[in-house]
Amino acid sequence: MKIKALLLDIDGTMVFKGHAIPGAAEAIEAARMAGLQLRFLTNITGQLPSTIAEDLQRHGINVRAEEIHTASTSCARYLKSLGDVSCFFLMPESVNSMFEGIARDHVSPDVVVIGDIGESFDYACLNQAFGYLHKGARLVVPHKNLFWFDPRGVRLDCGAFILGLEAASGKQALVTGKPSPVFFTSVMDSLGVKPSQTMIIGDDLLTDIAAAQHLEVAHALVLTGKGASYTESDVPRPERLWPSIAELSRFLAQSGHNTD
Amino acid sequence: MKIKALLLDIDGTMVFKGHAIPGAAEAIEAARMAGLQLRFLTNITGQLPSTIAEDLQRHGINVRAEEIHTASTSCARYLKSLGDVSCFFLMPESVNSMFEGIARDHVSPDVVVIGDIGESFDYACLNQAFGYLHKGARLVVPHKNLFWFDPRGVRLDCGAFILGLEAASGKQALVTGKPSPVFFTSVMDSLGVKPSQTMIIGDDLLTDIAAAQHLEVAHALVLTGKGASYTESDVPRPERLWPSIAELSRFLAQSGHNTD
Repeated sequence: MKIKALLLDIDGTMVFKGHAIPGAAEAIEAARMAGLQLRFLTNITGQLPSTIAEDLQRHGINVRAEEIHTASTSCARYLKSLGDVSCFFLMPESVNSMFEGIARDHVSPDVVVIGDIGESFDYACLNQAFGYLHKGARLVVPHKNLFWFDPRGVRLDCGAFILGLEAASGKQALVTGKPSPVFFTSVMDSLGVKPSQTMIIGDDLLTDIAAAQHLEVAHALVLTGKGASYTESDVPRPERLWPSIAELSRFLAQSGHNTD
Repeated sequence: MKIKALLLDIDGTMVFKGHAIPGAAEAIEAARMAGLQLRFLTNITGQLPSTIAEDLQRHGINVRAEEIHTASTSCARYLKSLGDVSCFFLMPESVNSMFEGIARDHVSPDVVVIGDIGESFDYACLNQAFGYLHKGARLVVPHKNLFWFDPRGVRLDCGAFILGLEAASGKQALVTGKPSPVFFTSVMDSLGVKPSQTMIIGDDLLTDIAAAQHLEVAHALVLTGKGASYTESDVPRPERLWPSIAELSRFLAQSGHNTD
């Protein structure tokens, strides 16, 4: 098979617990040499694309900010598409600039927006969000990831708090990041490629692989990051299992892409 | 029908938002005059039975501490039945005395116990609990109520946080309070009454009415507290709908109980 574009995950796929995955930099280089278009799709909500790109570059991985789409950039785009709505944000201050121009309301907002504010989650802010939802506000979230790994160990992610708010309010959150199909298709559209010309690579069965299968896009699960705990009985069953992103170079060579 | 025992809910049924439900005191008096055994089963986790009894008495409702079973008393009994286990508690300090004698462990506990600590819920303590669950600890909780009403408005309850921990850890919490059938049957056993001689009265479709139906116990949903938002399309369908607990006096008289 010949593909034109790669949609790659970042955390657990390119880097993990503060270190680059061995071979990641070379794999990206090989993909660029093969003439593939690259986009990095991540549910990281607390960093601007420019910050994420700098971090990857520090690890020797050649990625430009314009190639990075986060669940937060997608969230900001969606909220702006709604027109005249007021929002209550539980979003990291570091991405405030993405949401400039959207009205903030701490009395009776139309929309409650919740991303990963980490240590800042507390009873007061979650109960405040619940009060708005109970009064009728909608819930929009970049993603519902339940946990992630950092160098200190496992860490609860915003999805763990969103689940409780959904259950208590009887409302379903609209997800703007992975595994929302709209997130992937809007990126493919912007590149002018079809699902049949694309490959999704990531470490998460739900946010990467299930989404790829739903969209009928070729895909590989890397057995790094969350993928390290993959077992054969897990569902869905990925089309390809790769020890790590380093396998991409070999795959491109074997599938007839010129990576020299 | 003639019944021998009543299992009554407290919050939303006897009192609501800091006030007695009109007619509650008289209904309890009528039940006592009719010779019924009364037990008050509540998912309140932050108060000792003695404190709850004093509060009800202040509202003119004649209840003794020995007649009150809380989800926390039931939790303490369950943990003690496990024998030699170590626990990490996120429980209100006010009920510490119930758990005396159970080993506390902040390194590698066997069991994580989570009740409603209200304003004390924060990222640090929830992530700490998640770390233990991820390493293999079991999760035991008095209840999984999602929210409640206080004079200030709606308030998230511990269930909203427990749901997220269950999903993130892939573990199901063991519930010691309502709607756990064991909670109700242990009280009926202690009274020496059968399900067919008992009636459950409460304001919550899930914790009171569904449990009663599971145990084939006569029951009534009061349309106060959470019951105020009951609509005909809700499930399960209660056997009896009462405007409030005040209806108990009339019910006892009509069903042949002598309440004079």
